[in-house]
Amino acid sequence: MAVTLKDISRMTGVSVGLVSKVLNDKPCRISSEKRASIIKCAEDHNYKRNILASSLVTRKTYTIGLLIPDITNIFFSSLAKTIDTFFKNHDYTILISNSDDTMSNDIDIINNFSSRQVDGLLVVLSNESCQKENEEELLKVLNRISVPFVLLDRVVDNTDFSSVSSDNEAGAYMATQYLLNHNHQSIACIGVSSSLNGRARLKGFQRAVEEAKAIDVTYYEGDFHFKSGYKIGKDLDVSKITGVFSMNDMMSFGLAKALNERGLKIGKDLSLVSYDNLDLIQALGIELSSVDQDVNHLGRLSSELLLDMMKENCDRKTIVLQPKLIKRDSVKKF
Amino acid sequence: MAVTLKDISRMTGVSVGLVSKVLNDKPCRISSEKRASIIKCAEDHNYKRNILASSLVTRKTYTIGLLIPDITNIFFSSLAKTIDTFFKNHDYTILISNSDDTMSNDIDIINNFSSRQVDGLLVVLSNESCQKENEEELLKVLNRISVPFVLLDRVVDNTDFSSVSSDNEAGAYMATQYLLNHNHQSIACIGVSSSLNGRARLKGFQRAVEEAKAIDVTYYEGDFHFKSGYKIGKDLDVSKITGVFSMNDMMSFGLAKALNERGLKIGKDLSLVSYDNLDLIQALGIELSSVDQDVNHLGRLSSELLLDMMKENCDRKTIVLQPKLIKRDSVKKF
Repeated sequence: MAVTLKDISRMTGVSVGLVSKVLNDKPCRISSEKRASIIKCAEDHNYKRNILASSLVTRKTYTIGLLIPDITNIFFSSLAKTIDTFFKNHDYTILISNSDDTMSNDIDIINNFSSRQVDGLLVVLSNESCQKENEEELLKVLNRISVPFVLLDRVVDNTDFSSVSSDNEAGAYMATQYLLNHNHQSIACIGVSSSLNGRARLKGFQRAVEEAKAIDVTYYEGDFHFKSGYKIGKDLDVSKITGVFSMNDMMSFGLAKALNERGLKIGKDLSLVSYDNLDLIQALGIELSSVDQDVNHLGRLSSELLLDMMKENCDRKTIVLQPKLIKRDSVKKF
Repeated sequence: MAVTLKDISRMTGVSVGLVSKVLNDKPCRISSEKRASIIKCAEDHNYKRNILASSLVTRKTYTIGLLIPDITNIFFSSLAKTIDTFFKNHDYTILISNSDDTMSNDIDIINNFSSRQVDGLLVVLSNESCQKENEEELLKVLNRISVPFVLLDRVVDNTDFSSVSSDNEAGAYMATQYLLNHNHQSIACIGVSSSLNGRARLKGFQRAVEEAKAIDVTYYEGDFHFKSGYKIGKDLDVSKITGVFSMNDMMSFGLAKALNERGLKIGKDLSLVSYDNLDLIQALGIELSSVDQDVNHLGRLSSELLLDMMKENCDRKTIVLQPKLIKRDSVKKF
């Protein structure tokens, strides 16, 4: 059983109030011997300040809640690592919670963090929460959050919540343009229409092909995971399609694997441009052109914004980052 | 500002005690109209039970702390996901914290979780904490934890803490034997001697080559990351070495990439056996033989054990799982 202030008071013969002041480093009138004996007694008995009890008084927990949709997605685990490192340097503890991309978990976790009185929240919403039909309920949940919070990566339109996100439409537009500039006339898009960012990327893709005119377009529905790209790669008609825009690297991994099994080579038999620019991509052995969202920058900016908001140094802010296309050998002139 | 029991008491004209009983679903004498008006008032004003305050009374927070060394390592993020799913099904929230593999963070996070009064802890220690010279300090920290906890994956010897781990020595022995059974006479080991599990795997490797006798052995020091495998692959003398045991898949990824750039093929120019059997391995386009630790099983067993301990259904337990070698085309007869 943990030692309490009361126990230390009993053992040292000093009042609970004075013991509390000494152990919390508050000014008080006490002899240096008594002070030393209180500190020694606390150390000897491994006294731990009860954060729950003391935060009821100070109203600060030095804890930030981070909500992410999928801890096994490299994009989100990298984001979590950046945020964790930033806040460790500012003496905060980051508690991470995983929503499995469902709205009911979003709500449970936000409520749980709130009840636990974190000092601030960083929220990557589930795709379900970002569906148009759930907007009203989502806004209710977000409006109830009583501590500073920042939405990141997935942002709800037409609200004035603080947010840091990447311009997904611009990224997809630039990736598709890159294919078009290499004379590809029949191109495919592997997309994820159930996702907020997927829909934005689809807009960018469509804008690019509409501007180019007379381009033959095929659309495949994936789910951001390796297997969906692999399945699409098994049947992809390379006698017709010469260029592919895939909405993330994991699906591109799968596509490349399937083509490899068919004896086809990315950058030779098919041009491929992708999204995320994961470090892991190097392991593929192909040089994959990919849109880089700079996950470290995204994590750092949102952390800085939240810290400023917690210090009441700034108002709500909306930051949209511009992605960058990293050009490698997976796209060839047709 | 959040609504308190006091506010609801004032607005409904019912005592704080009765309001608390109604909202916490405790038996009490109150008219059904009054009960309904309290519930409506709480809903209208978005009353949230203060977990901090109420857990001081109930002493239960329905929260489990999970400490992991590196959230961006696929092995640990998969483990976290399994544990998260298990405990969500039992109405617990998992809070994950990342130690960056340092002992000082282990201590800070364990103390933080303890002060926050989680109901239980799952701990994957940092490699630093597992060093012999830190044993005394580590034991002090672990002995002070006042809630049930389970060590997983990395386990300290000669203690009776509950733990679930995999037999790393047996896994490495079996992987090395597989190379030896394919007549390889000059084999290399890519290891990580700073890691507890790395040292156990090295023991298994050494036992196998000693039993085989007259085997030519080269040792390379890596760090479990992609880049170290890549660097080793750049210089590896394939005119001499014909088989490699690499201590994890990430280094194998790197090795394969470097060999690929040199125009060499795994399974043809070099046999490779690896550790972890990550799903992602498929993306490599090579069929990599790898030791599978069944991360889902590890996560599930440790979660079940912790839950049993929290219900006081069982004593401390030490569980050691046997890994399995998944055989694929990366190893060929020499």
